[in-house]
Amino acid sequence: MDFKSLIRDVPNFPKDGVVFKDITLLLQNPKALNETANALYNLLDGQKIDKVVGMESRGFIFGPMLAKKLNAGFVPVRKPGKLPSTTISETYNLEYGTDTLEIHIDAIEKGDKVLIHDDVLATGGTAKAACKLIEKLGGEIVQCNFLIELTFLKGNSKISNYSVKSLIKY
Amino acid sequence: MDFKSLIRDVPNFPKDGVVFKDITLLLQNPKALNETANALYNLLDGQKIDKVVGMESRGFIFGPMLAKKLNAGFVPVRKPGKLPSTTISETYNLEYGTDTLEIHIDAIEKGDKVLIHDDVLATGGTAKAACKLIEKLGGEIVQCNFLIELTFLKGNSKISNYSVKSLIKY
Repeated sequence: MDFKSLIRDVPNFPKDGVVFKDITLLLQNPKALNETANALYNLLDGQKIDKVVGMESRGFIFGPMLAKKLNAGFVPVRKPGKLPSTTISETYNLEYGTDTLEIHIDAIEKGDKVLIHDDVLATGGTAKAACKLIEKLGGEIVQCNFLIELTFLKGNSKISNYSVKSLIKY
Repeated sequence: MDFKSLIRDVPNFPKDGVVFKDITLLLQNPKALNETANALYNLLDGQKIDKVVGMESRGFIFGPMLAKKLNAGFVPVRKPGKLPSTTISETYNLEYGTDTLEIHIDAIEKGDKVLIHDDVLATGGTAKAACKLIEKLGGEIVQCNFLIELTFLKGNSKISNYSVKSLIKY
């Protein structure tokens, strides 16, 4: 399936000079939604996964579908103050300033085999922070997978010690 | 399955006096994740759905799974400034102040049969705003379904002209 034909370029979003890859046309197409979920699943190549970790909030879209298909649990990684129980956090640098991600301390058990999923791999800051959170809790990262990879931002290099797979590359 | 045994009460979250229903233990349990998705699907009783509309951000967790199972598309309803293309918006009252939701104008076609899904039905303000957005775009609301309904907040009464179903009631 030609996934790229359903991804809309939105210039100057969220800020001037950025071309945003909008996946909403893909999501609202039943056949594309189904085939995208299957294709992301196939990136795993049959590897066993205990927990799929998805990043707020577009990582929540395909993360749980992947978990269901893999017979795994789903674990949300969220922005500060959103998870209600006890968390650990990881702060990372952005172009200007910093950002922080949190995970529940009881979300991952020691030795859990983990798939990290997000919609877009851009600079890799978010993905790297998520990897650190999982490893702090004793999880083993089997793969980081993404719907879209913006290869010109070289996010891959920030998480190069993991298996990184993306469905669609620009 | 006893879903309630996997829902954790977190007192005084997000503010004093509120007991938050935390679904993360349910999500991270593979069997519960799967059975919850199936049970939400069964609430539809075989009715045809073209689009599942899920509210940011916990409505993104089961909304796309339901869409996949229903052979429907998934449409996100988001907070202001998050959707990149042309939107319409709906503002609604909270206890203190207001909140606003947005949807892409090309997300719903006239006559689309729509399932609205969110994790929790509380006061019903969010659900009612989502219903208005769908109807502005010409969609027909078949059902509003929720993982959890806090019946003491009487959110049901705000959307009583629609079919409202909830998996777990408190």
